[in-house]
Amino acid sequence: MNIAELKDAIDSETLGLEMYDMISRLHPICRSITGDGVRETLAVVDERAPLNVHEVPTGTPVFDWVVPKEWNIRDAYIKGPNGDKVVDFQRSNLHVVGYSLPIDERMSLESLKPHLHSDPAHPQWIPNRTSYYKEGWGFCLSHHDLERLEEGEYEVRIDSTLEDGSLTYGECFLPGVVAEEVLFSTHVCHPSLCNDNLSGIAVATFLAQILAGRPLHYSYRFLFIPTTIGSITWLARNEEAASRVRHGLVLTCLGDDGGFSYKRSRRGAAVIDRACLHVLNRKGRPPTVFDFSPNGGDERQFCSPGFNLPVGVLMRTAFGSFPQYHTSADDLDFVRPGALAESLVTLLDVVSILETDRRYLSNNPYGEPHLGRRGVWLSGDWPFGPSNQQPLLWVLNMADGEHSLLDVAERSGLDFDSLRQAAEALLKHDLIAERGRRTSA
Amino acid sequence: MNIAELKDAIDSETLGLEMYDMISRLHPICRSITGDGVRETLAVVDERAPLNVHEVPTGTPVFDWVVPKEWNIRDAYIKGPNGDKVVDFQRSNLHVVGYSLPIDERMSLESLKPHLHSDPAHPQWIPNRTSYYKEGWGFCLSHHDLERLEEGEYEVRIDSTLEDGSLTYGECFLPGVVAEEVLFSTHVCHPSLCNDNLSGIAVATFLAQILAGRPLHYSYRFLFIPTTIGSITWLARNEEAASRVRHGLVLTCLGDDGGFSYKRSRRGAAVIDRACLHVLNRKGRPPTVFDFSPNGGDERQFCSPGFNLPVGVLMRTAFGSFPQYHTSADDLDFVRPGALAESLVTLLDVVSILETDRRYLSNNPYGEPHLGRRGVWLSGDWPFGPSNQQPLLWVLNMADGEHSLLDVAERSGLDFDSLRQAAEALLKHDLIAERGRRTSA
Amino acid sequence: MNIAELKDAIDSETLGLEMYDMISRLHPICRSITGDGVRETLAVVDERAPLNVHEVPTGTPVFDWVVPKEWNIRDAYIKGPNGDKVVDFQRSNLHVVGYSLPIDERMSLESLKPHLHSDPAHPQWIPNRTSYYKEGWGFCLSHHDLERLEEGEYEVRIDSTLEDGSLTYGECFLPGVVAEEVLFSTHVCHPSLCNDNLSGIAVATFLAQILAGRPLHYSYRFLFIPTTIGSITWLARNEEAASRVRHGLVLTCLGDDGGFSYKRSRRGAAVIDRACLHVLNRKGRPPTVFDFSPNGGDERQFCSPGFNLPVGVLMRTAFGSFPQYHTSADDLDFVRPGALAESLVTLLDVVSILETDRRYLSNNPYGEPHLGRRGVWLSGDWPFGPSNQQPLLWVLNMADGEHSLLDVAERSGLDFDSLRQAAEALLKHDLIAERGRRTSA
Repeated sequence: MNIAELKDAIDSETLGLEMYDMISRLHPICRSITGDGVRETLAVVDERAPLNVHEVPTGTPVFDWVVPKEWNIRDAYIKGPNGDKVVDFQRSNLHVVGYSLPIDERMSLESLKPHLHSDPAHPQWIPNRTSYYKEGWGFCLSHHDLERLEEGEYEVRIDSTLEDGSLTYGECFLPGVVAEEVLFSTHVCHPSLCNDNLSGIAVATFLAQILAGRPLHYSYRFLFIPTTIGSITWLARNEEAASRVRHGLVLTCLGDDGGFSYKRSRRGAAVIDRACLHVLNRKGRPPTVFDFSPNGGDERQFCSPGFNLPVGVLMRTAFGSFPQYHTSADDLDFVRPGALAESLVTLLDVVSILETDRRYLSNNPYGEPHLGRRGVWLSGDWPFGPSNQQPLLWVLNMADGEHSLLDVAERSGLDFDSLRQAAEALLKHDLIAERGRRTSA
Repeated sequence: MNIAELKDAIDSETLGLEMYDMISRLHPICRSITGDGVRETLAVVDERAPLNVHEVPTGTPVFDWVVPKEWNIRDAYIKGPNGDKVVDFQRSNLHVVGYSLPIDERMSLESLKPHLHSDPAHPQWIPNRTSYYKEGWGFCLSHHDLERLEEGEYEVRIDSTLEDGSLTYGECFLPGVVAEEVLFSTHVCHPSLCNDNLSGIAVATFLAQILAGRPLHYSYRFLFIPTTIGSITWLARNEEAASRVRHGLVLTCLGDDGGFSYKRSRRGAAVIDRACLHVLNRKGRPPTVFDFSPNGGDERQFCSPGFNLPVGVLMRTAFGSFPQYHTSADDLDFVRPGALAESLVTLLDVVSILETDRRYLSNNPYGEPHLGRRGVWLSGDWPFGPSNQQPLLWVLNMADGEHSLLDVAERSGLDFDSLRQAAEALLKHDLIAERGRRTSA
Repeated sequence: MNIAELKDAIDSETLGLEMYDMISRLHPICRSITGDGVRETLAVVDERAPLNVHEVPTGTPVFDWVVPKEWNIRDAYIKGPNGDKVVDFQRSNLHVVGYSLPIDERMSLESLKPHLHSDPAHPQWIPNRTSYYKEGWGFCLSHHDLERLEEGEYEVRIDSTLEDGSLTYGECFLPGVVAEEVLFSTHVCHPSLCNDNLSGIAVATFLAQILAGRPLHYSYRFLFIPTTIGSITWLARNEEAASRVRHGLVLTCLGDDGGFSYKRSRRGAAVIDRACLHVLNRKGRPPTVFDFSPNGGDERQFCSPGFNLPVGVLMRTAFGSFPQYHTSADDLDFVRPGALAESLVTLLDVVSILETDRRYLSNNPYGEPHLGRRGVWLSGDWPFGPSNQQPLLWVLNMADGEHSLLDVAERSGLDFDSLRQAAEALLKHDLIAERGRRTSA
């Protein structure tokens, strides 16, 4: 089956529900940039997208960084003056500041307060905080709960370890006809937060599962990594592979009900940028488009000046622009099976463009070929019939070896897919010949 | 007389009336892509624009096509059950589907109906239909008449021939100083339809007549050809001449009262595109501008990828966008002498730009020359006087050998003609020297 | 002190008052394109900005021009029939047409009138007229006064000389590290007109005074010249220096209360154009921006095709677009100390960009450097603190040796100055290295 037809072959509604189930399974796990939470998560991914799981020891230098200590946590709570647990890790792993050092002490409310974080703007929600590169400890709780704490002695306990260990990441590689790669990267370091980024993990996993075993032109690499240190670590260990990346996307925040957003690669108008915008501009809701900036997630590393990879970011509502972002409200109610399904189908559309975008040379470049005589209409190879010749005429007219189908789509305003089908029909009737794809992204 | 001054030398009002008269003479002739109607039409053109008339035999291969059989028709009618002619070719040649095979039969209304074409949206108008590349026969009639046909036996007769013969086209060539060519192409294959395209035939004929015998920089070639197969045939037989085309226009729909339209060449911003838009943007009504697309008329062939000639389309209301298009309502009332005259003058403006657009080198490029001392103002060579120095200053400032007058017009917002006059005055006073024109279109 | 910090080191309010005082001193002097008025003016400039004063003899050929005769005037008046002075040069030097020949005659009002100029649209104002390149004489007066002249015999006297002498201009040169130059040019040929151009003279003088003795990368040249013939003369005598000009501005009309205007260089997007617009677009009032045109002042000469220097024009309300322009209403009330001060500070901002705009290479181009570990935040080298990392991240991401800070400012939307400070902090921490500036403007 042609990669371009995959979209029609899948049952996206069912897949949406399955992705939602996967998110439900992953939700309780306490993830951080290292530790067993990542390993458990990758084990779930591996069920559908077979992974090479890498363990990079603490202390390993990776460019300007060093792989940090490994963090694990078993339990944490704060007991109030009356002995009740007023904050309990078992109820939500967001309650503990990520990378908190172990502690087991009794202290006054006054001593405790500098270690408590809440969000007065959303008094019912627990915020998510981390302290990756500055050792310390802390708890997060709803502002509502914070305000109800009474004076007295508190028992504070975090049963965590921060020790030499390793950084864990997973890699699913699907070899294609050529060694040039398409990279999808998603981060696996967030605790019980659904849209950011269990949605990205689920969509990437299912995309890899769908593409696996298909005849692929490009080789595909899916990275399941902790943010920042993960992409830096991968890049440091894979400079050769990085040099083969022709197109790439960071996948995040793909499960909410909002319209799509796209953040351009540093190159600004790479094929991946153009392909994504071609697809997104045909959705019912116009996409929100951001130019590249050195903020955000792993695109900062992929687009660092030494690599400058053509890697954009595909999202629904953009990270940082929905109030639930990095709070307990980014929960299982915030992501929807239908939104996950649409995100997956959108990615298949983008992959279809990457796989099938080519330049052609007309075999009859002087004047138009006589389509009628060649029976294109009658043979059934052109599904749209003689009343819609536009895609055929555009492909023929632009078949000068210079213009790719994506170029033609942008110039004509026609859908890429209709042009791809036109090119297939014209190839079959020996009216055009493949000239190749652009090798540079 | 300078080509740029021709416009002022002609009596455009009289020419408008004469073009209208020519259209009136050509209107009754039944034209198709081959046959005697084309020959009669070319004979009328030849009275003003001496033509080389070419006859290309049926069966001649022309690129991917083959010259078709020649079609001629003498009479056609449908007699109703009571013996009256309910459809009569003698009243309008639009009644017969172009390229209809001969027929002489009696049949029921039921058998006849599949061969009858009408336009319910415009029940009083006879539509125009052809069946060039699929043999068959048919009649066109107003929907009003169609609905009045009664049950009974009909006598159906088309006295036509579809036999080996030739495809006929005419060519008027005006040699200039250089072998590089300006191409004007107009189609001669439509029956009694005035705006599309007797207007194009008339305007092209008069333009050729006006330019003939004038000192011309470029060589000019006027083609009077049947659509599609005509341009393909010409290109196939004239690859060398085609390679010399530097600027070109397809002329069609130039007689209605609407504002101008322009369809860009495939190149998009060729000199012909820029020259036409410069002229049209100075009309009272802003032009309708279309990007190139592989729809339409002979520009599809001239702009096929193997040729990619800088050929645009000049029209008033664009083909396909007025309701009378390809119906009996595109008649002698629909075209106006004044509109024909304005179209002709507009083309003279475009030709003036093509002929006089040049790059210059200042003889005093360091600082401004002292215009006052040189007596430019006093000598009368600068008709606009010292209070309007703008064209002079712009031409001098841009006289770096890089910028053509058209470049200067676009950058300055000044009218090309004022810049041309400035260049003439400056040349006369030895302030600039000709650097040449761009050789590439 | 870093050139970028100069702005904060000066007391602009005091400088505004001092510039206003300088204008007040210069206001009474009768200047023209030659003569003692220019010499007196340059002597005042020289008090703050030491000048090389050049005297170029009458008759010296300068490109297409010749240095004109020197004009000087001591007195002029018109006495009415009753012996009263109805026009008196001692009350305003605008009363005499610049370059008027001497005259001492009695004549009727009828004979006098062709020599009298007024502006009916502003009946209280004296217009300013000159007759540089056509010998003659005349007076300017308010339309109100003109209309009150009665019939009778008038005594007309102009005590002027128009004789061989010289053209005078001043040059203040501040050598920098490199021989490449920044050019500021201002005209000194207008009589008692404050905004055009005593404001330009004052601002240029103070800018030169502030920059003098500072460590400068570029060499700076300030020209105090008569319009047109002055810039032509300077260019003719300094072709070598002209070839070293990398950035330049004509300074005029910098004292009124209006918002800023900028006229682009002929190149259109030279660094000087981009630097000025970067600064002006951050003012409260959006600037009025003009594309280059061969009208106006000395930019016409600097941007003539043989030089094509990257020289724009910085103004507040543009020349010719305020009604007081070239009239007696362009007086000491029309210019404001605060406006002069703001113009000066704006120029320092532009100079700061020119001086500090550089391209950098990241020393850690692969992934982001670990800013936290390097203590950038803690060391105090980054004044904006860790909550505003944007300038640091942008400079690092664009530190590929291709993008200058101005490029980064335009792409990021950040202020140039914050990027400059980021670059300084990053340099100090050895995170980037200087790659150099663009050598071409």
